[in-house]
Amino acid sequence: MNSFGNNFKVSIFGESHGTGIGIVVDGVRAGISLCTEDLMADILRRKSGAKGTTPRVEADEPEFLSGVFEGHTTGSPIAIIFRNGNTRSSDYEALKAVPRPGHADYVAGVKWDGFNDPRGGGHFSGRITLPVVAAGVIAKKMSGMDFSAELIEIGGETDKARWSELLDRTSKEGDSIGGIVECTVSGVPAGLGEPFFDSAEALLSHAMFSIPGVRGVEFGDGFAAARMKGSEHNDPLVLEDGAVRTVKNGAGGINGGITNGAQIKFRVAFKPTASICREQKTLNVKTGEMVSLNVPGRHDVCFALRTPVIVEAMAAIVLADLAARK
Amino acid sequence: MNSFGNNFKVSIFGESHGTGIGIVVDGVRAGISLCTEDLMADILRRKSGAKGTTPRVEADEPEFLSGVFEGHTTGSPIAIIFRNGNTRSSDYEALKAVPRPGHADYVAGVKWDGFNDPRGGGHFSGRITLPVVAAGVIAKKMSGMDFSAELIEIGGETDKARWSELLDRTSKEGDSIGGIVECTVSGVPAGLGEPFFDSAEALLSHAMFSIPGVRGVEFGDGFAAARMKGSEHNDPLVLEDGAVRTVKNGAGGINGGITNGAQIKFRVAFKPTASICREQKTLNVKTGEMVSLNVPGRHDVCFALRTPVIVEAMAAIVLADLAARK
Amino acid sequence: MNSFGNNFKVSIFGESHGTGIGIVVDGVRAGISLCTEDLMADILRRKSGAKGTTPRVEADEPEFLSGVFEGHTTGSPIAIIFRNGNTRSSDYEALKAVPRPGHADYVAGVKWDGFNDPRGGGHFSGRITLPVVAAGVIAKKMSGMDFSAELIEIGGETDKARWSELLDRTSKEGDSIGGIVECTVSGVPAGLGEPFFDSAEALLSHAMFSIPGVRGVEFGDGFAAARMKGSEHNDPLVLEDGAVRTVKNGAGGINGGITNGAQIKFRVAFKPTASICREQKTLNVKTGEMVSLNVPGRHDVCFALRTPVIVEAMAAIVLADLAARK
Amino acid sequence: MNSFGNNFKVSIFGESHGTGIGIVVDGVRAGISLCTEDLMADILRRKSGAKGTTPRVEADEPEFLSGVFEGHTTGSPIAIIFRNGNTRSSDYEALKAVPRPGHADYVAGVKWDGFNDPRGGGHFSGRITLPVVAAGVIAKKMSGMDFSAELIEIGGETDKARWSELLDRTSKEGDSIGGIVECTVSGVPAGLGEPFFDSAEALLSHAMFSIPGVRGVEFGDGFAAARMKGSEHNDPLVLEDGAVRTVKNGAGGINGGITNGAQIKFRVAFKPTASICREQKTLNVKTGEMVSLNVPGRHDVCFALRTPVIVEAMAAIVLADLAARK
Repeated sequence: MNSFGNNFKVSIFGESHGTGIGIVVDGVRAGISLCTEDLMADILRRKSGAKGTTPRVEADEPEFLSGVFEGHTTGSPIAIIFRNGNTRSSDYEALKAVPRPGHADYVAGVKWDGFNDPRGGGHFSGRITLPVVAAGVIAKKMSGMDFSAELIEIGGETDKARWSELLDRTSKEGDSIGGIVECTVSGVPAGLGEPFFDSAEALLSHAMFSIPGVRGVEFGDGFAAARMKGSEHNDPLVLEDGAVRTVKNGAGGINGGITNGAQIKFRVAFKPTASICREQKTLNVKTGEMVSLNVPGRHDVCFALRTPVIVEAMAAIVLADLAARK
Repeated sequence: MNSFGNNFKVSIFGESHGTGIGIVVDGVRAGISLCTEDLMADILRRKSGAKGTTPRVEADEPEFLSGVFEGHTTGSPIAIIFRNGNTRSSDYEALKAVPRPGHADYVAGVKWDGFNDPRGGGHFSGRITLPVVAAGVIAKKMSGMDFSAELIEIGGETDKARWSELLDRTSKEGDSIGGIVECTVSGVPAGLGEPFFDSAEALLSHAMFSIPGVRGVEFGDGFAAARMKGSEHNDPLVLEDGAVRTVKNGAGGINGGITNGAQIKFRVAFKPTASICREQKTLNVKTGEMVSLNVPGRHDVCFALRTPVIVEAMAAIVLADLAARK
Repeated sequence: MNSFGNNFKVSIFGESHGTGIGIVVDGVRAGISLCTEDLMADILRRKSGAKGTTPRVEADEPEFLSGVFEGHTTGSPIAIIFRNGNTRSSDYEALKAVPRPGHADYVAGVKWDGFNDPRGGGHFSGRITLPVVAAGVIAKKMSGMDFSAELIEIGGETDKARWSELLDRTSKEGDSIGGIVECTVSGVPAGLGEPFFDSAEALLSHAMFSIPGVRGVEFGDGFAAARMKGSEHNDPLVLEDGAVRTVKNGAGGINGGITNGAQIKFRVAFKPTASICREQKTLNVKTGEMVSLNVPGRHDVCFALRTPVIVEAMAAIVLADLAARK
Repeated sequence: MNSFGNNFKVSIFGESHGTGIGIVVDGVRAGISLCTEDLMADILRRKSGAKGTTPRVEADEPEFLSGVFEGHTTGSPIAIIFRNGNTRSSDYEALKAVPRPGHADYVAGVKWDGFNDPRGGGHFSGRITLPVVAAGVIAKKMSGMDFSAELIEIGGETDKARWSELLDRTSKEGDSIGGIVECTVSGVPAGLGEPFFDSAEALLSHAMFSIPGVRGVEFGDGFAAARMKGSEHNDPLVLEDGAVRTVKNGAGGINGGITNGAQIKFRVAFKPTASICREQKTLNVKTGEMVSLNVPGRHDVCFALRTPVIVEAMAAIVLADLAARK
C-alpha cells in the first residue's frame, strides 16, 4: 500500500501535522558513503520560500534511526524521520464538514470512515514527499545514474523570463497555476526493465502518479507520437563511438519496456494548487447545503515549482530497483 | 515481472510464434458464471481484419485449463491458453542482425544475451495482449463496473468521418499512424485506491504503460490541467440525487489517489505502428554497417484501432484488484 | 496466492480432474539448456506405481508452451502444462455432503461457497505438486547447487530393511502411514537470505508447508536443539581447506537467516495418507447425521514415499530465488 | 526483505546499538482504539529481568510517529519507534575478527562486505523483536482472535516445578538452554488461508522462522503425525453446538492450508542462547588462528523465556493479514 519496489524498496508514513513523517529504505547496498548532510541539497530544492511557494517554512531536518554506521550504509534498512514542527491546526472539524475542492479531504473521510487525520491534509499532504526526496538521494547513489528534472512550463507559459510576472499576477488574483516537469536520466545501461508489467515506463509512471497532483505522464515524443507517422517516430539504430544508439530518442530511451541505453526522457503534468484564496462554492457534506469557502492559510501559488526534485527522487527509486534486479 | 496485481492477480506468458500464449488469473471470486463464449465478444473486438489492421487473421480460440467447473469459477486460479497458429517464421536470424527500428528486437537481444525468441517479436509481441483481453472479461465480471474505451483520434485526426480516407492514404504511402484512446469507467464506488504508491492513477497508469506502444497517459483534464488556473480546475462538490458528486470531473474521478465516486476518465496515447513498408536506414549490429530495411510481412497501418478493448481489460484488472482489497 | 518467489517466481494452477495442470516459471536466466526430457527423471521419481504408492498411474507428460527456443531458455516466462488423463470422477456430490476426514473437502466448500471443484480433491490435490517438480528441475539448473532429499523414516520405522513388510502390513489393514524426509543442499554460497522475514529458513519452511500433508519442519538439530545446552549446540568456526566452516552444522547451514556456506540440512514431517480403506465415522454436513465412510478408490499407503523429489523442488525454487537476488 | 504481509503489512528496521529501532504497520483498519499504554502489557512480557533472563533492562518506551489520531487508528501507516538506551559498545572490532559461535556475526560480515553494524549483533539482534511485539498488539486488535502462547519445556524439562533449579544450575555452569513454545489461537473463522503458497501453515511458519533462534515449527500432531497411522491421525467431523468441528484437532486447526474453525495449534523450538560465559574455541577470521573466546556481557540463560509473546505477535500479524484478505 504505502510501499514500493522489489529489490530496492521504500515504505512511507506520516501525516502533515502528526508527530513525524518518514521513510524506510530497504535493499540498500552496504558500503555506500552516507550522512545526513548528503540529503540537504535535495531537501533544500524541495523547500518552500521562493516566489510562488508558500511562505511557511519548516525545519526539514532528517534523522537516521538505522542502517548507517560510521558514515556508510550497513545493508540493513535505513529509517529516516523528520519531526513535524510547531503545527497549529486550526479548526479541522470544519474541514470534515466542508471538504476543500480538489483535495483528498472528502475521499479520505469516505475511505477511513471519518477517522482520517484531517489536519493539513493528513497523510495525503504533499509534505509526505519530503522523505521521498531523502530516499531519492540514496537511490541516486545506488543507481550510479544522473537525474536532472526541470520545470519547463507553468500556467501554459514556456518562456521563463515571464514566470515572475505570471506568479505575481496569479498571486494577486488569489488563484494558482500548474506546470510541467521534464526529467532526463543519463548513464542508463541498456537492458533495464521487463516486458509488460514491469516495463521501465510502467514502473516510472507508477511512481510519478504516486506524487500528489499529477495529471499526466508521457515518454519521449509522448502524446505527440500519436499524431506522428511511423516513418517520423521510428528511431533507426546507429553506431556512435562504438556504441549502439538511437538517432532521435523519440522513444524516451525505452523500447518494449526495456532501456535501450539512450537517455530516459519523460514529462509530468502537475495540476494547479488546489488551495486558493478565491472564494469557492462547495458542499457542506454534513448539512447538505452549498456554502462559500475561503481556504485559510498560506499556500503555494504554483506547487509545481517545488516538484522537480521529487520527480528525480521517484525516478531514482525506480531505476535503483531495476538496476538491483539485474 | 510478468505478473500484476495484489488480491486479483494475472501472470502472462508466451511468444508470438511459440507453441502457445496464455494467462493465469488468480484471486477470482468463486461462483461467477463463466464459459469460453463469454470471452469471444471482447476477443473479436481486438481481432484484426478491419480496414487499417493487418489482413493476417488468427484463430484466437481460448481454452480454460483450470478454475472453471460446471460453468462457474471455482475460486482456484483460472489458466487460459491460446495455441499459436500456423506461423511461418521467415528469416529470423536476419532480425537479430538488423533489429527493426521502433521494435524491441535490439533490447531483447541485449537483455537476454541473444537467447530471446526473435520470431514475430517473441515475448514482446502485441499478440500477448490477447490473453490480457480474456482476463479482462473475468475482471469486468468481478468488478461489477462498466468499462467503455474508444479511439478518439488517429494520426491527429479527430473527425471520424475522415478516418477511412486517412487510413487508405497512409497504407498507400507504406506508412503507419498512431492514435489516442479514451476510457471511461462507470459505477465505480468511492474509496478505492490507496494514497501514494497504490493510488488508483498509479496502478492504472502502470497497467496502461504495460501495453506495448503506449507513449502517454493522462487523467481527467490531463496535461491541459497544467495550463489551467486552480479556480478553473478545482471541482466543487455538490449533492446529486442524494449522492455527493463533483461538478466537472476534471480530476478524472480520483482525488488524492482515491476514487471519488465519479466516472474514472483517462486517455492513452499510442505511437504509430513500428513496422512500416517504407524503406528505413538502420544498423546491422553484427557488421556495424548501415543498411536498408523493408520490414517484411503485412502489418497494422494503425494498431491503435485494436487497442480500446485492451485498455478496458487492463483497467478492469486494476479495478477488480482494488475492489478486492476493500 | 498461488504464486511464490521474488526474482524467480512460480505460479501454479489446475485441479486433479480438470482439463490440465501447470506452472508458469518467471525470472529464469536466458541461455540455460532445457528440453522436456530434462524434466523426466524427477517426474519419474514422483510417479506412483512402486510398493506403498497408488497403482493408478498417469501419463505425466510435460509440454512447454513458452519460454524455450532452440533448446534454451529465452528469458521470458516458461509455461509448462500437463493434460489430465482419462479421469472418471465418481459421485462427487457425495463428497460435498460427506467431506473426507483429513482432506480439504470441507474447508474448500466453506472457502469457495460450494463452488469448488470437488473431483479428486480439486485444486487441493497432491497432483498439483507435479508441475512443482517440473519447475524444480529448472530451479536446480538456475541455482547451480546440489539437492538431495531422502525418506529417513516411515511409520516411525528408521530401519529401511523393515519398510517393505511394514507397507504390506499397513496395506492389509486398510490403513496408511506417514514419514520424514531429510533434505541436504550442497554447494550453497555463504550470504544468501535476509535477516528476519526473508531469512533462508523462513522462505524454505514457507515452501515446505506449501506441500500438502506437511506437519513439521526443522533445521539442523531442529527440535532437539531446544533440549541442548549452548555449549553443545554452538558451532565454532574453523578453517577447512582455506574456507571458513562450522564444525557440527547443528544450525543446518544457516545463521541469523543467512547461509553460512555449509550444507543446508532440514527435515520435513509428512502425515499419513488421509484416504484409507478402513471405515471411518464422520459427518454428513448436509443432513447433520454421523455416517460411515469408506473412501473409494486406490490410494497411496504412504504418500511420503513420493515426496523427496517434491521437497528438493521446493528447496530449489527458494534457493534459485535467493541466489537471483544477490 | 524486511517487510512481511499482503493486506496487513509490517516493515522493521533498526540495530541493537543504533539510534533507534521500529516498525511501520500498514493496512490497519481505521477506527481501532489505540494508545501507547495498550502496547505495554505485551512489551513487559518480552522484557528481561526475571530469573533466566539478562539483568540488563532497557526502557522500551514506544512512540507513535503516525497513524494514530485522537486515540484511534486513522487508516494510514502507523510508525512505532523505540530509542536505544545508553548502549556502551565495547570492542566491536574484536567481534569482526572473532565472530561469536552460533551468532550471525560471521554471515553478516560476508553478506554486507564488512559494513554491517556489529555492535550487539546489529540488525540481527533479538532486540528487533521488540517492535514486532508492538505491532502484534495492533494485529491482535485487528484480527479479533485470541492468542495464547506459553513455554512448555526448557532444556528438555517439561515439569515447570523444576525450572527454577535448572536455570540456577545452568547459570552457574556459565551455559544456556533452549525451550519449546506452544501457541493456541482461538476464535479463528473457517476459511482463512489459501491452498499451497499462501496456506495458513506456510505463512505462520514463515513468520515463526523469522524470529531469531528458531530451529523447528510443527502444527497439531506435528512430527508425531509422521509416526501415526491414518486411522489415528485422521480427524472426523462432528456437529458441536450446531457448528462443524473436528474431534481431535491433530491437524492444528488447518486442512489443506485453510483454517477449519478449530483452534490453531503449533509449537516452536528455540535453540539455547548462543552467548555463553563458558570458554569456546573458535576462529579468528582475520588471522586464521583458533582462539579462546569468552563472550563478554550479561546474557539470557534461556532467551526462550521471553519468546511466547513474540510468537503470539507473529501469529497475530499473519492472521490479521489473512483475515484482511477475505
